[in-house]
Amino acid sequence: MTFSTLSDFRNLLAAAPAADEAARAAAVERNGQLTKPPGALGRLEDLAVWFAGWRGTDRPRCDRPQVIVFAGNHGVVAQGVSAFPAEVTVQMVANFRHGGAAINQLARAFGAEMAVHALELERPVVDFTTGPAMDEAEVVAALRRGWEAVDPTADVLVVGEMGIGNTTPAAALAAALFGGGAESWVGRGTGVDDAGLARKADAVARGLALHAAVLGDPLQVLRCLGGRELAAMAGAIARARVERVPVVLDGFICTASAAVLEKAVAGSLDHCVAGHVSAEGAHGRLLAALGKEPLLNLGLRLGEGSGAALALGVVKGALACHSGMATFAEAGVSGG
Amino acid sequence: MTFSTLSDFRNLLAAAPAADEAARAAAVERNGQLTKPPGALGRLEDLAVWFAGWRGTDRPRCDRPQVIVFAGNHGVVAQGVSAFPAEVTVQMVANFRHGGAAINQLARAFGAEMAVHALELERPVVDFTTGPAMDEAEVVAALRRGWEAVDPTADVLVVGEMGIGNTTPAAALAAALFGGGAESWVGRGTGVDDAGLARKADAVARGLALHAAVLGDPLQVLRCLGGRELAAMAGAIARARVERVPVVLDGFICTASAAVLEKAVAGSLDHCVAGHVSAEGAHGRLLAALGKEPLLNLGLRLGEGSGAALALGVVKGALACHSGMATFAEAGVSGG
Repeated sequence: MTFSTLSDFRNLLAAAPAADEAARAAAVERNGQLTKPPGALGRLEDLAVWFAGWRGTDRPRCDRPQVIVFAGNHGVVAQGVSAFPAEVTVQMVANFRHGGAAINQLARAFGAEMAVHALELERPVVDFTTGPAMDEAEVVAALRRGWEAVDPTADVLVVGEMGIGNTTPAAALAAALFGGGAESWVGRGTGVDDAGLARKADAVARGLALHAAVLGDPLQVLRCLGGRELAAMAGAIARARVERVPVVLDGFICTASAAVLEKAVAGSLDHCVAGHVSAEGAHGRLLAALGKEPLLNLGLRLGEGSGAALALGVVKGALACHSGMATFAEAGVSGG
Repeated sequence: MTFSTLSDFRNLLAAAPAADEAARAAAVERNGQLTKPPGALGRLEDLAVWFAGWRGTDRPRCDRPQVIVFAGNHGVVAQGVSAFPAEVTVQMVANFRHGGAAINQLARAFGAEMAVHALELERPVVDFTTGPAMDEAEVVAALRRGWEAVDPTADVLVVGEMGIGNTTPAAALAAALFGGGAESWVGRGTGVDDAGLARKADAVARGLALHAAVLGDPLQVLRCLGGRELAAMAGAIARARVERVPVVLDGFICTASAAVLEKAVAGSLDHCVAGHVSAEGAHGRLLAALGKEPLLNLGLRLGEGSGAALALGVVKGALACHSGMATFAEAGVSGG
């Protein structure tokens, strides 16, 4: 199962299976028999039932999480949109490979297997204020890189990113997909000042104007305004949808990539939960537009998949309770 | 180090050591050198620095969490304040001992050692609408039970409770310590109906009136309006303060018990972080009164230490990042 055009990719996504309703119903039934007052585990109960449907079992586990970090570089950094120089992307990839970054520590803490994919860092995508970021072959290659990176035997997936300047294409995607203008989707990223923020808004506005003809086609939006690591995240999330592997979404950039899929084929993110809402102001609005309630709200704004990996703790806790607790009958407790 | 009167207990608490400022300052210094933009890990950074101060090292670990669940019964259930019968307390203690409850799964998921202490379940404390819940010997015994249950080699502590009817004494403690009237501190607990809620408010109001003479003395408030498991939680949190073991607070009942200590000796909860805010409405107000911002907000209302145990995932993630990440210099990343 693979694809060689954006049209094939869209068709695969549209043909993805639904969640297993029988498993979901069995999980609801089990939840009602566990030794606790009804609803007392709050959102953990909804999370476990949802997870059960995607995994096709009423007692799902979360023993094999996978974390994949995709890295890319961006021509648009020439517009002065980032507080850090572009060479930090390749330096951080080395840091991921040596185990020194935040995501390495979080992946280890929650027992996740971690993979890092650097996507042609020496060849940044085209500055989208001057032309399409990628041609079709490039965006398809990036989507496939993500698609093929997914371990279909994983029981939950986190995708993260590293790419100096990539809150700018993410804002461009969000603005293209949801409207509202450039200013409402740009933020300070890793810490640009007021002038940098104004340059981001200006770059996004110019990108939207230049690519106005494709704004109605989400996959063309990804091609013209995105980047390789954004496309790779979308490809991985799509593959997980097809394999019925639940995904924990990370921050603004990850969510903007994911939103491309939902806009291309409604329901494409039904297997996704929002791991956290980040300190990047537009992230909360983007999640609201997608109808996703975040699990955590701790002011993170790092990317790398860090907020989603941290939320693996909540997922693990939810499944441990759901799949491990005794029922009223098993425990001989009154009130079931 | 022990105590045989409430006065001795208070003196021990008042003599507890402060956090290690040098370790805290070293952790701040280390945090500033880690391979991430400044502040990008949000609340995880504050949590790690705070933890470092209490543990007295700039690179703290969270490898040996302890979870202790205390159970007690309450004469005030005779007032019709609970949706469940009192025998559920002993049944749930058996469930804890057999590993079937939510807290067992969460403790296991986060690598915590778990202990269960049942406090004279066959002998409920006196209905506080008819007299003091405990005499001095009883409350001191319960405080000591908690004090002695703490493993001083643990690196973080969660205390939880089980006790049918115990949101009512918790509301009474909160009302006695913070004012505002009975109605503002009672809630639906494990699920009482409107009539049950009115009976809870009435019982609390009568308790406050009966014990009006002691409302200015927090430890007497605990004796007259509390219960054995509430006193034991307070004793354990106090011991952790003395041993400089950080505590993750659970829900409304745990926080009400903890509040007794803060009101008795200001600063007694400086080693505590709020693990979550529960669905019991008064919990958010109680945390605000204590100046504690919760780590999680997932609609839990189970008790047992469940919300705090779930928050151990966040604590572990914070410390894994802080203590495990590479510095800019170590990783050769620009921008440090």
